Amino acid sequence: MASVHPVAAAAFDRSDPRAVRRAARSGAHAGHTAGLAPGYVQGNVCILPRDYADDFFVFCQRNPKPCPLLAASDPGDPRLPALAADLDIRSDVPSYRVFRDGEPAGDVPDIRELWRDDLVAFVLGCSFSFEEALVDAGVPLRHIAEGKNVPMYLTDVDTAPAGPFRGKLVVSMRPFTPANAIRAIQITSRFPSVHGAPVHIGRPELIGIEDIDEPWVGDRTEVRNDELPVFWACGVTPQSVVRQARPPLCITHTPGHMLVTDLRNASLAVL
Amino acid sequence: MASVHPVAAAAFDRSDPRAVRRAARSGAHAGHTAGLAPGYVQGNVCILPRDYADDFFVFCQRNPKPCPLLAASDPGDPRLPALAADLDIRSDVPSYRVFRDGEPAGDVPDIRELWRDDLVAFVLGCSFSFEEALVDAGVPLRHIAEGKNVPMYLTDVDTAPAGPFRGKLVVSMRPFTPANAIRAIQITSRFPSVHGAPVHIGRPELIGIEDIDEPWVGDRTEVRNDELPVFWACGVTPQSVVRQARPPLCITHTPGHMLVTDLRNASLAVL
Repeated sequence: MASVHPVAAAAFDRSDPRAVRRAARSGAHAGHTAGLAPGYVQGNVCILPRDYADDFFVFCQRNPKPCPLLAASDPGDPRLPALAADLDIRSDVPSYRVFRDGEPAGDVPDIRELWRDDLVAFVLGCSFSFEEALVDAGVPLRHIAEGKNVPMYLTDVDTAPAGPFRGKLVVSMRPFTPANAIRAIQITSRFPSVHGAPVHIGRPELIGIEDIDEPWVGDRTEVRNDELPVFWACGVTPQSVVRQARPPLCITHTPGHMLVTDLRNASLAVL
Repeated sequence: MASVHPVAAAAFDRSDPRAVRRAARSGAHAGHTAGLAPGYVQGNVCILPRDYADDFFVFCQRNPKPCPLLAASDPGDPRLPALAADLDIRSDVPSYRVFRDGEPAGDVPDIRELWRDDLVAFVLGCSFSFEEALVDAGVPLRHIAEGKNVPMYLTDVDTAPAGPFRGKLVVSMRPFTPANAIRAIQITSRFPSVHGAPVHIGRPELIGIEDIDEPWVGDRTEVRNDELPVFWACGVTPQSVVRQARPPLCITHTPGHMLVTDLRNASLAVL
């Protein structure tokens, strides 16, 4: 596909996933992707050397709720045609975070210079997709209404290890009335490739969360007196696990700066 | 269908729904139906004069969770071919309870003498069907394990009224660990014609239940420290509502003595 990079372009069609990727590719858009290309799947990105990639594949297979794998590239191949025909993982994310030996080593606008023949790109489903389904069904999400990041917690629940990858499950929390909690379980059960059904409901102490008002990551979100906290497996889990494995090189998206794909969220519904 | 009534028959095929109905019809079986014809739908029975039946039809339509209507007869017609080809509602329930002006007026083994041209028979789905699906999925039910009746509670939640039928929702309660509660919501959501998904989870006080250890009907069932109480709309609701409407005549099954049908529980799954 012909590649034209109008670096100076200020505007692009924010509803079109291909236009968003092209704006990321050209540098015209280097910001968050929340609200861009509504209705389309956005993915978490994790790029690893092949030495680590095989174990990470197994880790994802063993932990499908925190690590719902949408697509993985062939080693050295920057394309992911299952997600979009024109996608180039070296340039189409608005901002990348580079980790060396598990430690952050800076954010970069593209990774053309870092790309190698042994790198494998993984794209994992993200909660934006099921949150859209909840909002469309009239189930309100407080953190969105309040313009906050969803609160996330490190639990005492072990993931199933694979090679160097091991660690505790990270969960996101959304508060609901009991009736809406039941509805949210029904709706998100239809979307196993974007974390699926919750892993826990009520009683945060049973999964090692001591204080619901002190999230590990993200913003405190009130759980009102007539509500239950509902917990989903979170895409921060693989990020946390990969960092602990300390691969010499790992490249992810910068938080909030997701890969926008051509898959429709509704196409992920299993029924 | 030829009708032979071997009153003295002591044994019948307890796995065959037609044999169970024939045993009820002949008087060979006048007991509970729990455990009989496993895999087949058992129904709650409510028989009303036509003057009340039209409003009860509307009540069921407006309150599908407590009143999931499986079938209704034509006035005066004792057959329900949607449930079984040979079914005769005047004789095929092991024991009937007669209510006059809303008050119990005795249990009888059949209602051939009471049948009239204006009576309409309603058969409503019952929780036995979804409980079988839960047990088959490995989700344990404590009241069954302990050989008890499920605990039931009168809530402060209004049903949607229709004509003389109005009153509060009655719910049944089953305790689960959070993970099993999520699984139970998924499984029972597939069975809307037998009460479907729960109506409430956790926090009994939010629906007017003051003491979980004091059920309105049924047996106390422990909710352990690592469990949540999960509440389903209950088939006792229409019985309670009908009694309060005080129709001159109403005939139901005697509790636990259900109508056994030829429908398979699995056939009720909507997906």
